[in-house]
Amino acid sequence: MQLTIVNPNTTASMTRAIGAAARAAASPGTVVTAVNPDSGPASIEGYYDEALSVPGLLGEMRKAGRADAFIIACFDDTGLDAARSMVEVPVIGIGEAAMHMATLVAGKFSVVTTLAVSVPALEHNVLKYGFAHRCARVRACEVPVLALEDPASGARAKISAEIARAMAEDRAEAIVLGCAGMADLARSLSAEHGLPVVDGVAAAVKLAEGLVALGLRTSKVGGYAPPRPKTYAGGLGKAEA
Amino acid sequence: MQLTIVNPNTTASMTRAIGAAARAAASPGTVVTAVNPDSGPASIEGYYDEALSVPGLLGEMRKAGRADAFIIACFDDTGLDAARSMVEVPVIGIGEAAMHMATLVAGKFSVVTTLAVSVPALEHNVLKYGFAHRCARVRACEVPVLALEDPASGARAKISAEIARAMAEDRAEAIVLGCAGMADLARSLSAEHGLPVVDGVAAAVKLAEGLVALGLRTSKVGGYAPPRPKTYAGGLGKAEA
Amino acid sequence: MQLTIVNPNTTASMTRAIGAAARAAASPGTVVTAVNPDSGPASIEGYYDEALSVPGLLGEMRKAGRADAFIIACFDDTGLDAARSMVEVPVIGIGEAAMHMATLVAGKFSVVTTLAVSVPALEHNVLKYGFAHRCARVRACEVPVLALEDPASGARAKISAEIARAMAEDRAEAIVLGCAGMADLARSLSAEHGLPVVDGVAAAVKLAEGLVALGLRTSKVGGYAPPRPKTYAGGLGKAEA
Amino acid sequence: MQLTIVNPNTTASMTRAIGAAARAAASPGTVVTAVNPDSGPASIEGYYDEALSVPGLLGEMRKAGRADAFIIACFDDTGLDAARSMVEVPVIGIGEAAMHMATLVAGKFSVVTTLAVSVPALEHNVLKYGFAHRCARVRACEVPVLALEDPASGARAKISAEIARAMAEDRAEAIVLGCAGMADLARSLSAEHGLPVVDGVAAAVKLAEGLVALGLRTSKVGGYAPPRPKTYAGGLGKAEA
Amino acid sequence: MQLTIVNPNTTASMTRAIGAAARAAASPGTVVTAVNPDSGPASIEGYYDEALSVPGLLGEMRKAGRADAFIIACFDDTGLDAARSMVEVPVIGIGEAAMHMATLVAGKFSVVTTLAVSVPALEHNVLKYGFAHRCARVRACEVPVLALEDPASGARAKISAEIARAMAEDRAEAIVLGCAGMADLARSLSAEHGLPVVDGVAAAVKLAEGLVALGLRTSKVGGYAPPRPKTYAGGLGKAEA
Amino acid sequence: MQLTIVNPNTTASMTRAIGAAARAAASPGTVVTAVNPDSGPASIEGYYDEALSVPGLLGEMRKAGRADAFIIACFDDTGLDAARSMVEVPVIGIGEAAMHMATLVAGKFSVVTTLAVSVPALEHNVLKYGFAHRCARVRACEVPVLALEDPASGARAKISAEIARAMAEDRAEAIVLGCAGMADLARSLSAEHGLPVVDGVAAAVKLAEGLVALGLRTSKVGGYAPPRPKTYAGGLGKAEA
Repeated sequence: MQLTIVNPNTTASMTRAIGAAARAAASPGTVVTAVNPDSGPASIEGYYDEALSVPGLLGEMRKAGRADAFIIACFDDTGLDAARSMVEVPVIGIGEAAMHMATLVAGKFSVVTTLAVSVPALEHNVLKYGFAHRCARVRACEVPVLALEDPASGARAKISAEIARAMAEDRAEAIVLGCAGMADLARSLSAEHGLPVVDGVAAAVKLAEGLVALGLRTSKVGGYAPPRPKTYAGGLGKAEA
Repeated sequence: MQLTIVNPNTTASMTRAIGAAARAAASPGTVVTAVNPDSGPASIEGYYDEALSVPGLLGEMRKAGRADAFIIACFDDTGLDAARSMVEVPVIGIGEAAMHMATLVAGKFSVVTTLAVSVPALEHNVLKYGFAHRCARVRACEVPVLALEDPASGARAKISAEIARAMAEDRAEAIVLGCAGMADLARSLSAEHGLPVVDGVAAAVKLAEGLVALGLRTSKVGGYAPPRPKTYAGGLGKAEA
Repeated sequence: MQLTIVNPNTTASMTRAIGAAARAAASPGTVVTAVNPDSGPASIEGYYDEALSVPGLLGEMRKAGRADAFIIACFDDTGLDAARSMVEVPVIGIGEAAMHMATLVAGKFSVVTTLAVSVPALEHNVLKYGFAHRCARVRACEVPVLALEDPASGARAKISAEIARAMAEDRAEAIVLGCAGMADLARSLSAEHGLPVVDGVAAAVKLAEGLVALGLRTSKVGGYAPPRPKTYAGGLGKAEA
Repeated sequence: MQLTIVNPNTTASMTRAIGAAARAAASPGTVVTAVNPDSGPASIEGYYDEALSVPGLLGEMRKAGRADAFIIACFDDTGLDAARSMVEVPVIGIGEAAMHMATLVAGKFSVVTTLAVSVPALEHNVLKYGFAHRCARVRACEVPVLALEDPASGARAKISAEIARAMAEDRAEAIVLGCAGMADLARSLSAEHGLPVVDGVAAAVKLAEGLVALGLRTSKVGGYAPPRPKTYAGGLGKAEA
Repeated sequence: MQLTIVNPNTTASMTRAIGAAARAAASPGTVVTAVNPDSGPASIEGYYDEALSVPGLLGEMRKAGRADAFIIACFDDTGLDAARSMVEVPVIGIGEAAMHMATLVAGKFSVVTTLAVSVPALEHNVLKYGFAHRCARVRACEVPVLALEDPASGARAKISAEIARAMAEDRAEAIVLGCAGMADLARSLSAEHGLPVVDGVAAAVKLAEGLVALGLRTSKVGGYAPPRPKTYAGGLGKAEA
Repeated sequence: MQLTIVNPNTTASMTRAIGAAARAAASPGTVVTAVNPDSGPASIEGYYDEALSVPGLLGEMRKAGRADAFIIACFDDTGLDAARSMVEVPVIGIGEAAMHMATLVAGKFSVVTTLAVSVPALEHNVLKYGFAHRCARVRACEVPVLALEDPASGARAKISAEIARAMAEDRAEAIVLGCAGMADLARSLSAEHGLPVVDGVAAAVKLAEGLVALGLRTSKVGGYAPPRPKTYAGGLGKAEA
């Protein structure tokens, strides 16, 4: 099975880390390819970065060759609906993946993401996915995305402190880590706090493998119908399935 | 990986069919055991049958020996919360499994279940899981559970007709089959109608395998905390993890 | 009028207290019988206990002889839907009873229950009944159910402190006491805090009497239709109305 | 127990019928007084009539002398919040009464009211009370309020036809009659259609009796706090409890 | 364009201030007339005052002569639905106006109103308008309506402190001032706190001007259909468009 | 006042028509500039087209020079959140504009848009904006966007027929036209059907003028905070206010 993961930002070191996290989660026989676009923002922090990363993301999907499923490795699930319209195979966002998995092991979860600027976009996804009464709160630990890679940022301690607050104040029964860059912290934070801590990259790998094994593909009836034939000026939008 | 599937009704032929469907979906290395209780209703059609099947279901889980995950193979997700409280490993209901998978490949789904008496319980689950605006409608094809095994019942044709109505009237983009006994129909109905048709047995196998692989276990913080030590009279309720 | 109250746990002293509270609330001419099953958990604290108490509860209802209405005297409304499917007369849960009554005298209420493990099940009922925006919060005072009968537990003081917090933090306009074992505290806590404090046992008595007087019986159209004829192995489930 | 029912419209024949229906439902020992204001609309059909009936309604409550509880006998629950602010005893609207009772005997109900102009106001109440997912639909039979008293209006047949549609199209498990003038039809329509049909006048009598017996009074904490001392020009608004 | 603003309380000094605020916001060519009834409460604080102010409000609208649009200048949007039923031109409440405008410049807003007694009525409007997940919280600064005009009341400082709390505790991105008497504070509070602060009087003027310019009038299909011909006793309710 | 309207598709004839509709709605003193990007899809029909039009849209805003407010002239409100993050002045989408205005003149509205592929994206916006219980249904008339300009398409008749269905089946009290290309039809369809028909282009002009006049600007607290300084590769994303 060929699983293509697109990190929609342009930071190659983060793409490598995501690829490693995905391979660690993948089943034998799953080939993971992790890519990122050349153009777009270096990290995705808020609506503006999200919007500007989508054409690059779709372009990488178009270049990807045959894939059995795609994963979008930004917790905002950037461009997810557009990506689903473009292809027939399953497309999973790491944000939705983590939330779905969390609701299978806990009544309520809280999200711990990077910056406050991303919280409204995530709350919006929570509402859209249906988890408004399953998600106790979306919290920010105020560590920028790229600082997660820097040991001097104190990121782990800040995330851990936010998890403690989520347990005390939100009565969270599980924690969803709200950034692809936090993938490697899930197990140790789970052990430290004694509750499930879900990383979206690994969660998305398992959901994508599952959908492929089940033969489930993106519905082409309704909102994910293929783009209608039309002119896309400026080299954008050559849609292929 | 040891996956134990409990069919909460007492009909062994249905348990065998569920086991076969689960094995067809399982990854290499996953050992599937399908069991059913000796006591309880022969099929689960409505709230009353649901309630009476739970002690038998929990008893089977208690007797099961080591399992890496459990699946409850009734679309009502009978006894799911109680089962999660009893064990530390993941427990997946086939109803929730199918709905989660459907929302990953479609914006909206409709459920096609057996009898109208089950519709309110399923609508209630839809609300609880958060899919109230993702589930267009829960429909009944008016085929009793055990008649699904009888070729003379016309079950497939009735289900197919209900799918056609769901597409026309509900604008459903995917269909969730609302009974464990429909597991073998998913692929042919999907081909016939040109949209994803999700069977919960197979979906639950993939979700359970995924959670186990991720090391995610049922949260013991909050509602799924282990039962408190107390007397359970009448031989009921010896809780073990 | 014959009102049969089933305490779904096996603690006879609690059944006696519930019976007394119900008789104190009953109208002249209402005969109250309070019973409990022989088998099942000694108290109901969480999903697991709930599930294991239901067959005993239904068995007591089956043995009860003619009743004009049934009351289920556990604040989780254990087995309520199954019970309604089994009989044609009204069945009232004390949890729903207290919540309905609270919304008739206040815009918003908070629930004060026993243990945190029960909170998710109660929040779920709140959602199901429709009171998600009428119930400000479900709170636990961390007194186990059976400790409510023990003067040394400090139960009343802990409940009273939690009520004070509900008024200050939740802007609750009424309090719903979240356990059958708190029935005798309602009036004194109401006087102390100056707002309505609702006990579910008494509330259920009045609602049951009301429904009987109005000639309203459980709908047999839809989800509460009688169980279909089938085999219930193991002595379970002989349904009679 | 003194129960004062205010019909907020000025049609005395309707007040007499409401009083008779209430007395038929009342317990021995309950004294029912039914009154209506001298000023205001002859019937309440829509928002405008509602608003203009409130001062008269409050005036009747002010004149009523000691009452243990009040009932507002218009299905729109006209002026209910204002009335609750004015007094300390319980105040019940017949609309909310019928809906609460319906949810105790059925999973879902539909309302059959008089005219389409009233539907939005009732849908709004449904939302406010929390019954948005318990009320399948609010339907109008297009019989004006005062025509209900006229045998030539064909009212009963039109209501009956609308109930049949509610059962077929909404999967309603109970029917709520949406006008005080339909009180006498509940039992025969229930017998005809084989499901619970709830009349709000009788339902309100039982709820009011229940609240009084329980010693529950309107919360004076929050939104129903007594009006603050101030000038009410034009003879309006002398608030007394 | 003739814009008639009705302050539904009887305090003429407040009407003058509202008129001035409205004129400051009005476009050239808009003639603003601000009136108040002779009868009714001196200020509107809670449900009771609201209800008693409506006939006077409707009476002023009836006397107003030709108006292109009406504004109801009480943040509770007192009598809004009745007023819309009475006329064909647009009617805007200042509460809804401020909330709509806030959602166009911010993801989430909090309301800062006068007294806690008004909070439930406002929360109810928030729900009705659809802003339940856009309004973070309705807060009271505990300054009575008429004290807003008294410099010694410390009103501005109390409102400012509540805004600071809304930003810190509710993560509000905008503030809606919850009383017509706060109209003159919006700009300075916005400058002080660095986020949009919306006054409903000015907001309503712009929305009313906009609707008139677009030729949009109140729908007469459905709930705002004209009152049906009937007797309104006591001089009330002569409906004219 | 300088109002810059960006049609996010590349069809210049549609931009001209939008500009004309906007100018017809604008107040004296408002200068309307209508632009469209050079790159991107020729029309926006579904998620894919939406995503690919955003960079061009943001680019046009960046090139626009001083504007007092921006309008995004696609009914999907394409890129709205990103655009708000980029600038400090108000940004209005024509979809939200029409819906807000419709709720000020009617209790419930239905949307009539072009193609079924767009319905899920619009339903999603309805949910996000809060209008889930104010919007009766989103309907498609199955006329492609660019066919709206072609008299031979029968567009007006198809839209009119869909309005008739919305009135009969959805009980819609107002209609929102779901495409910028329908702007010129609003008044005649309103006259034909006797209810408010709202065009988003004109509605957005009035809302934008209103916000500017009120001095309200996009909140920079929370989700619309300015993009953080970072590298945007490939010439994308130079953010300026």
